[in-house]
Amino acid sequence: MTSPAIAAQSLTPAAIQAAYGLIQPHVHRTPLLTCKTLDTIASTPQSTEALVGTPFEGQTPAHPQFRFFFKCENFQRIGAFKARGAFHALLRLLEERGDEVKQRGVITHSSGNHAQALALAASTLGIPAYIVMPRISTPSKIAGTQSHGAEVIFSGSTSVEREAVVAEIQAKTNAILVPPYDDFNVICGQGTTGLELEAQHAEQAGSRTLNAVITPIGGGGLNSGVATWFSDKQTRVFGAEPSFEGADDCRRGLQAGKRVEAVGTLTIADGLRTPVGLLNWEVISNQKKVEGVFAVTEEQIKSAMRLVIERMKVVVEPSAVVGLAVCLFDENFRRRVEQEGGKDGWDVGVVFSGGNTTVEAIAKLFT
Amino acid sequence: MTSPAIAAQSLTPAAIQAAYGLIQPHVHRTPLLTCKTLDTIASTPQSTEALVGTPFEGQTPAHPQFRFFFKCENFQRIGAFKARGAFHALLRLLEERGDEVKQRGVITHSSGNHAQALALAASTLGIPAYIVMPRISTPSKIAGTQSHGAEVIFSGSTSVEREAVVAEIQAKTNAILVPPYDDFNVICGQGTTGLELEAQHAEQAGSRTLNAVITPIGGGGLNSGVATWFSDKQTRVFGAEPSFEGADDCRRGLQAGKRVEAVGTLTIADGLRTPVGLLNWEVISNQKKVEGVFAVTEEQIKSAMRLVIERMKVVVEPSAVVGLAVCLFDENFRRRVEQEGGKDGWDVGVVFSGGNTTVEAIAKLFT
Repeated sequence: MTSPAIAAQSLTPAAIQAAYGLIQPHVHRTPLLTCKTLDTIASTPQSTEALVGTPFEGQTPAHPQFRFFFKCENFQRIGAFKARGAFHALLRLLEERGDEVKQRGVITHSSGNHAQALALAASTLGIPAYIVMPRISTPSKIAGTQSHGAEVIFSGSTSVEREAVVAEIQAKTNAILVPPYDDFNVICGQGTTGLELEAQHAEQAGSRTLNAVITPIGGGGLNSGVATWFSDKQTRVFGAEPSFEGADDCRRGLQAGKRVEAVGTLTIADGLRTPVGLLNWEVISNQKKVEGVFAVTEEQIKSAMRLVIERMKVVVEPSAVVGLAVCLFDENFRRRVEQEGGKDGWDVGVVFSGGNTTVEAIAKLFT
Repeated sequence: MTSPAIAAQSLTPAAIQAAYGLIQPHVHRTPLLTCKTLDTIASTPQSTEALVGTPFEGQTPAHPQFRFFFKCENFQRIGAFKARGAFHALLRLLEERGDEVKQRGVITHSSGNHAQALALAASTLGIPAYIVMPRISTPSKIAGTQSHGAEVIFSGSTSVEREAVVAEIQAKTNAILVPPYDDFNVICGQGTTGLELEAQHAEQAGSRTLNAVITPIGGGGLNSGVATWFSDKQTRVFGAEPSFEGADDCRRGLQAGKRVEAVGTLTIADGLRTPVGLLNWEVISNQKKVEGVFAVTEEQIKSAMRLVIERMKVVVEPSAVVGLAVCLFDENFRRRVEQEGGKDGWDVGVVFSGGNTTVEAIAKLFT
């Protein structure tokens, strides 16, 4: 097996471009939306009270200028960017191994958006799919995965239990594993989000520079893919994580100079409960590719989610808004935008990673 | 004063076109969205159980084919189509009476979207605005209205109390009343929703016919405006109301051959609690303009709202989805689409009238 450090060298903008050529017929070019109300709110200094208890207590709150461009992957097929990586991984498998893939099938374990994405891509391409899901997954997610024609196999909730079931199914079927994020082809697929975002910003903002892009980091597939796309461009890439119960494993790993290998968190941003993958870490820990990773609290995630739902009228899941929450609430980040952007401010691409939630889940968050 | 019957004769497509020319710089051309998932759901027959207790009990459920085109006025300025009518009314006042309007100001009583729309239009055009709101209005709506620079004056909740406060302010300021729906210029403004919908359908669907358009009916400004636009075209126009506590005043009025003058309902579709206006009734009761009005239950409204939030990832207020609820659940309407549309089905424009809700309100509806 190639080491992550070697494999990472092949993660280039050209690889993302090639992925885009393959997946384009199968994915939506999701809209890039603007919202003056959110620009105004983010471009207003936080109150001095908001800084109490932070290292910025007593200091003048930053006064950055933001022009947001929201890349709405919540409108992507299956409601999340994961469709990009899943289609790309399967299209490459078909290219490389042909009909063998249709005989063996593919397998993954996931209770979330990757499960549905793989189920959709597999059924579209005529490949059998086995999805191992924890028995306690919400019925709507199980039904969603089954509705795309995948065979759902239940397991316990721990990763040991899930992997045991995967091994069992693989022994029977010889199905090929498609990992949710720690995979070259998956990362290239997710990176096409950055490619589209850049092109749409140019269409909308003319010759203005796209100063920065910020995405959520769970396993890191989206962030490392987007950072790969922008690695030969001026646009800075940042990552965002929840801080709850140590979900900010990537941020902590960067501080310690060593990837954190396991996390146990029940953050409301349920797509971001996983540690960053090995290959993903190679990209994200490269400061030339990702300039910084910031973390936000559960309350900050909820505030950002409320603003998007009530002001933009767009449905997002909690994981989707951690990047916006950084722009709204992280005083370090806001100072940087003030200092580097000055009076002109920054054009910031914010990736809304998904919108798979329910009215009951929204109710539970806000009552 | 011109009688409603005479005034209605001037409600022509040309009047809507002229309104569009005036308001275009001030309003958004909101997107016309499609959603295959909702097409599929609506094009699946209802279960026989769903028809138990209805006149269709025991019969084979209709099997219509729908292709939806959702006109997203929830993305309009202030979050509802009301911005169109408010801007048009004020631009006409300025044309007709010039600077006098800026001295006298404008006034309305509303606790909802019309209040915010008039406040926005007035502040944009440099006209003082007085908005009479019931003291019990939700703080977010009061704050929203004030944030557009309008002076909010509180009143009791009944229409008698509200009108008394309006009269009092008018006596002091000589402010000009801008009614929320029963007004020629307001209707022409709202009708531009139909003009845009038709143009966008042509852009997206090529030469396919737009078979029908359905909109909510509260006071009837939106529906009568849209029906005016389509009055010289093949596209059929329908209206939708809640049935709860008699909110279906328009439907009942049509059955009785006489406009219902008052309603007392607390339907969750809070934008549709008013009786249809006099001028609006002239249009809507003309079968050549509006072919039918249908009513849906609170549960049907909630089901439609859930689908839009969870599947389309778009935030709508309950009032916005009564048209979709008719398409999903009204067996009379569904039979008509099956019979007239046949195997090809119908292209149906569904107007989402607004998206002004809060996460707390969503929580309250679904817990």
